[in-house]
Amino acid sequence: MPTNNRTQNPIGVFDSGLGGLTVVKEIIRHLPFEQIVYFGDTARVPYGTKSAETIIRYAREIVGALLKYKVKMVVVACNTASSLALDVLKKEFDLPVLGVIEPGARKAAAVTRNKKVGVIATSSTVKSGRYADKITACDKKIAVTSMACPLFVPLVEEGWFAHEVTYRIAREYLKGMKKKKIDTLILGCTHYPLLKGVLHDVMGPRVQLVDSAREVALEVKEMLATSGLLRASSSRGRQRFIVTDEPKQFERLASRFLGEGIKDVRRHIYV
Amino acid sequence: MPTNNRTQNPIGVFDSGLGGLTVVKEIIRHLPFEQIVYFGDTARVPYGTKSAETIIRYAREIVGALLKYKVKMVVVACNTASSLALDVLKKEFDLPVLGVIEPGARKAAAVTRNKKVGVIATSSTVKSGRYADKITACDKKIAVTSMACPLFVPLVEEGWFAHEVTYRIAREYLKGMKKKKIDTLILGCTHYPLLKGVLHDVMGPRVQLVDSAREVALEVKEMLATSGLLRASSSRGRQRFIVTDEPKQFERLASRFLGEGIKDVRRHIYV
Repeated sequence: MPTNNRTQNPIGVFDSGLGGLTVVKEIIRHLPFEQIVYFGDTARVPYGTKSAETIIRYAREIVGALLKYKVKMVVVACNTASSLALDVLKKEFDLPVLGVIEPGARKAAAVTRNKKVGVIATSSTVKSGRYADKITACDKKIAVTSMACPLFVPLVEEGWFAHEVTYRIAREYLKGMKKKKIDTLILGCTHYPLLKGVLHDVMGPRVQLVDSAREVALEVKEMLATSGLLRASSSRGRQRFIVTDEPKQFERLASRFLGEGIKDVRRHIYV
Repeated sequence: MPTNNRTQNPIGVFDSGLGGLTVVKEIIRHLPFEQIVYFGDTARVPYGTKSAETIIRYAREIVGALLKYKVKMVVVACNTASSLALDVLKKEFDLPVLGVIEPGARKAAAVTRNKKVGVIATSSTVKSGRYADKITACDKKIAVTSMACPLFVPLVEEGWFAHEVTYRIAREYLKGMKKKKIDTLILGCTHYPLLKGVLHDVMGPRVQLVDSAREVALEVKEMLATSGLLRASSSRGRQRFIVTDEPKQFERLASRFLGEGIKDVRRHIYV
């Protein structure tokens, strides 16, 4: 094996906080031999209520930090950052950058039968209109209904995954979706897969929930394969975790998203 | 009037976002001739779930920024920053710095009859234990019950001030307070005064709600008076507003907290 082999370099994954770990989980499942460096911007979380200009600035800083780990590609595992900053990152950085919007939009366009797709996401993601753009780019006949659900993230962080209040709030937010008779609902925020039970109950069994984490992992695999960057190894890849706030809280909550515990989270001060 | 008269300088007020405007409102009411520079750290809001180390770093940066406006004193109009950073700020900066914890704690200690006081606040404020410390410093016999209410801030920001869901969540959070038969409840976060209606209904008419904004304004007045820094003027003071994220959203929501509209909010990039 030649030295300085880029295939051995890690995949960089970032999110505003913990949610992106749902994407890491799928990457590990589909690409167990890859190394991963995860960056969670916990000192500035959440992104979903902030402006495009601010999110672009944060995303740029984070990709800069990930480059120090010699990442071979970057996955923007945050819907808000994908909606607002992906184009800028692709233009400014000379490495493959993948967001979570397109894979989710494509999947939804593929599975809808009645051409009525719903998107739930943060305020900033909904305001960006990126999901609707990408879905109609797949199929102009699809009607997209979007709804910002700002209370879902705090409910997940409070751990109220199946609380009566969560059901009540979900019924309120999803009223319009039900009325429009959507048959496919995109979970447009990496926190929302933890509310799948509630969302499934509220929307009913005929509505398919699209969680883009799996699609993103498959696209990472394809991108690495086509650019000859898949890691050749017989040993499982290592994951490293970097956060901007105190690591302890991140370690404590990570298993909710990752499905397994982590430790040795490092802290990055971004100034 | 001598030039360079410090009395003419503004009062600096800061918060993680919008909540501190409830304090500005009271300062304007009690000190209409004072100039105010308000700094809202909207690009990094909220503070209530972040670590002491991070909050101290942010608070230090913000006081540094306020000093450029030649503020004659600083009011930390954020319970989390007051709990975690006040001592550091007092030590490091050579000007009067006032937080919101002590005024609220003193007021609660003065009004309780049965010596049972409740505190509702963010997770970081509750974890700091500062309210309990300050209340028992006033009267060792007072029993303090604290409860973190992380969903209250997003509910206020969603505008659900009297929503059925807000009642349901308040009943859940305040269950323990009712059981302990507190007669005084400190609203330990500058967002909570907007939920006064719900909190009053849930706790009942015999529980007094303590909102420290008024007490803080009165203490600002006293501090300025005793240090000879009250502004001598017959014209009303001017308020300036600085935020770290995009100003438009701040302008749009400010009236909820301030009771009047504002414009010409400036942006500060903190790097």
